[in-house]
Amino acid sequence: MTTAHAQFGVAGMGVMGQSLALNVADHGYRVAVWDRHPERFDEMRQKGAPESLKGHARLEDFVAALERPRRIMLMVTAGAAVDSMMEKLEPLLQPGDVMLDCGNSWFQDTRKREEAWKQKGLHFMGVGVSGGEEGARYGPSIMPGGPAEAYALVRPVLEAIAAKSEAGMCVTHVGPDGAGHFVKMVHNGIEYADMQLLAETYDLLRRGLGLPAEQVADLFAKWNEGIAESFLLETTVKVLRKKDAETGKPLVDMVLDKAGQKGTGKWTVQVSLDLGVPVPSIAGALDARNLSSMKDERVAASRVLQGPGGENLSADEKANLAAWVHDALYAARVVTYAQGMRLIQAASNEYKWNVSLAEMARIWRAGCIIRAKLLTPLREAFEKKPDLSNLMLADSLAPVLGKMAPGWRRTVGVATRLGIPVPVFSTSLAYFDSYRSAELPQNLTQAQRDAFGAHTYQRRDKPEAGFVHSDWS
Amino acid sequence: MTTAHAQFGVAGMGVMGQSLALNVADHGYRVAVWDRHPERFDEMRQKGAPESLKGHARLEDFVAALERPRRIMLMVTAGAAVDSMMEKLEPLLQPGDVMLDCGNSWFQDTRKREEAWKQKGLHFMGVGVSGGEEGARYGPSIMPGGPAEAYALVRPVLEAIAAKSEAGMCVTHVGPDGAGHFVKMVHNGIEYADMQLLAETYDLLRRGLGLPAEQVADLFAKWNEGIAESFLLETTVKVLRKKDAETGKPLVDMVLDKAGQKGTGKWTVQVSLDLGVPVPSIAGALDARNLSSMKDERVAASRVLQGPGGENLSADEKANLAAWVHDALYAARVVTYAQGMRLIQAASNEYKWNVSLAEMARIWRAGCIIRAKLLTPLREAFEKKPDLSNLMLADSLAPVLGKMAPGWRRTVGVATRLGIPVPVFSTSLAYFDSYRSAELPQNLTQAQRDAFGAHTYQRRDKPEAGFVHSDWS
Repeated sequence: MTTAHAQFGVAGMGVMGQSLALNVADHGYRVAVWDRHPERFDEMRQKGAPESLKGHARLEDFVAALERPRRIMLMVTAGAAVDSMMEKLEPLLQPGDVMLDCGNSWFQDTRKREEAWKQKGLHFMGVGVSGGEEGARYGPSIMPGGPAEAYALVRPVLEAIAAKSEAGMCVTHVGPDGAGHFVKMVHNGIEYADMQLLAETYDLLRRGLGLPAEQVADLFAKWNEGIAESFLLETTVKVLRKKDAETGKPLVDMVLDKAGQKGTGKWTVQVSLDLGVPVPSIAGALDARNLSSMKDERVAASRVLQGPGGENLSADEKANLAAWVHDALYAARVVTYAQGMRLIQAASNEYKWNVSLAEMARIWRAGCIIRAKLLTPLREAFEKKPDLSNLMLADSLAPVLGKMAPGWRRTVGVATRLGIPVPVFSTSLAYFDSYRSAELPQNLTQAQRDAFGAHTYQRRDKPEAGFVHSDWS
Repeated sequence: MTTAHAQFGVAGMGVMGQSLALNVADHGYRVAVWDRHPERFDEMRQKGAPESLKGHARLEDFVAALERPRRIMLMVTAGAAVDSMMEKLEPLLQPGDVMLDCGNSWFQDTRKREEAWKQKGLHFMGVGVSGGEEGARYGPSIMPGGPAEAYALVRPVLEAIAAKSEAGMCVTHVGPDGAGHFVKMVHNGIEYADMQLLAETYDLLRRGLGLPAEQVADLFAKWNEGIAESFLLETTVKVLRKKDAETGKPLVDMVLDKAGQKGTGKWTVQVSLDLGVPVPSIAGALDARNLSSMKDERVAASRVLQGPGGENLSADEKANLAAWVHDALYAARVVTYAQGMRLIQAASNEYKWNVSLAEMARIWRAGCIIRAKLLTPLREAFEKKPDLSNLMLADSLAPVLGKMAPGWRRTVGVATRLGIPVPVFSTSLAYFDSYRSAELPQNLTQAQRDAFGAHTYQRRDKPEAGFVHSDWS
């Protein structure tokens, strides 16, 4: 082992891989990178890669170039490519080496992979990385899951490259096996919902209030100086202000209204059903993207299905809608985080990960896509009460929800009347109203189930007596 | 082979198995039944089982008693019990014998089981059976999937025992492999949503309008004479009229508001995400049951989270809310069916099942839990246009939705203001409003995705030019 050995390896020089490798090199580490396309190494030189970063087109050379225990970050597309790389790397590695899968892998795959490599004496970690290209290059939020002894080996590097906030470095050991990828998946689910809330806000201001993109941008810029501050809101301001070079119009107006998606949002909702944790705000955002993609059908349906005609805003509504929508945005964002945090809590209990929700809020405070001012009270709430059953109940947030609820209700009311769909504003409000209802009408549901299917029910006056059946005829 | 051989076998004498076996025997078939608890055969005698129905406690005797090709209905709990029975039965069967799994099995399991048995020359069918104990005994709706040649062998028996409506026998060959169980799963998903809509209706009339159970029953009884007629509405009337023997109060008021669930609703939502078909009304109903089960948390939250105080109904609202809710119930039910039918259509395309949606509507017209007057226009719509992309667009339903939408909007508006959660009324309305919107705000979503993740977008003025990326800074 000579000093010439690289201290850290990154395999897969796509946009994210290059950015992460350059980030590691920036922090004084000798970095070996691998890619099957060696021209990417030239690309990286042009981006300013130092001499201490060396490219290898053969995996054998890449692995041989690394000091032991080897630390290899894998940045390839989740799925089969990860298995294929693991198969190729495994015979080249030695006991104690650490592999970090930094893609958006399904956490159950990560659990299996870690277990399989453990049998061979190798460390496998599933690592969530958020922040896009910019974040990866200059400071992402990093969510590593896997063996604690493996984390100890990679910790200095991850702490060096991670984003920093006033609450420290945006990386922590999330927990064993799939914990890191699970948390990243939920992060993305929250991102879906937060983006949908911004889309609904924009739609109400545009179609409801009739504001052009520039004025919406001005309003959002003002909001971004207050409690609603977030990276996504800031990004929205930039997006709304961008002009189209061809037409001179706002570029956003030239973008087709069909939103794509990858797998993490879908997985979040699917696993939430297995864990029995409702995440309707995330599910609603996913549905909204799916519905948006049916553009041709929507255009055809708009000629057949009748909307409300001639509905106008009252003077009160015209004057106040923007303020109400601001409150709806903030309140529904709290609800979205509440659902996401609870889902992490449920998985942590199910898989015995012991995830600290306060730490998750802390490492999301900078670098990642969902970073927002809200994460500070959120972190404090879970620091104060780590087993808080629902974020909405936090001492610092419950009164804010109470204050924002009237505007939120008015927002949903106006949108409903105008026929402007606000699926996530309204489903978030239904979640809030259901959760704060001591009484819900599911006594009828349970009675019906007993009436036609003999599914039995509990009596309200003696639930401890267990389940009984009645003849309802 | 003598005439003494039984013509049909039923294995598993739980409530549903007994009812189905007695139903088959009623239609003149010699029936052999199996159960490991022979005391159940005495139970069945007391229920009037004829001499032509014979019980066997040993599987060998049961199989030997059947004429060939054997036709065996399996009525055990979905999951491991089905595999265990298949393992025990397989060595006793001969090529050409037919097994019908009549439980709520996961359709992917059914696909695998059918394929595995085909290799052995045996027929396996996944059969959905709906109608509860009553339906199984006197006429269920039956949804058989599997090989056409196997269906031909069991068809006379299934047609004999199925419910009958004015449109014929409530059984048809749904399609190959998992088609029958898939359709039954979606049937149950629709059932979840329809029950939740009734719960929301009841809640608005009870908490919003202040009506006692008896008056809600009177109103529902009147509605059940019109277009909203359905088995579940009729059941609700019975449920609401039932008095508690102990207190003399309406029994429904004594039922604890925690609703249980089994797996089919959850599966419906999970698979809808894989198929990219939004079913928010079904998902919302599932979430509502999950939230209802958090009773202790809700009671605690009701003391912390603030609802709207002092909101009253206006004279107009008091006078009309019941009529509006009626329209909301009907319209949201149409939306629910639209989502379910589209999900079946998507799976039928994906797995090449060639399911006829008109036939599904026909066989649901009697016997099953979701039977309703709505199924007649629904069937006609798909007869007229088998590839109708969305039921809401049907010539006979689109104008009705237009007529009902104002009341539906008022219903959601009032509930939102009062703080009474109506998750499925509102998510159904958002689905309706999204689907009929030629323009949605996902241009912003897609622009955001391009801005922070370089995910690219299509231009509205030249979508055919493909995906482009912009620098949004």
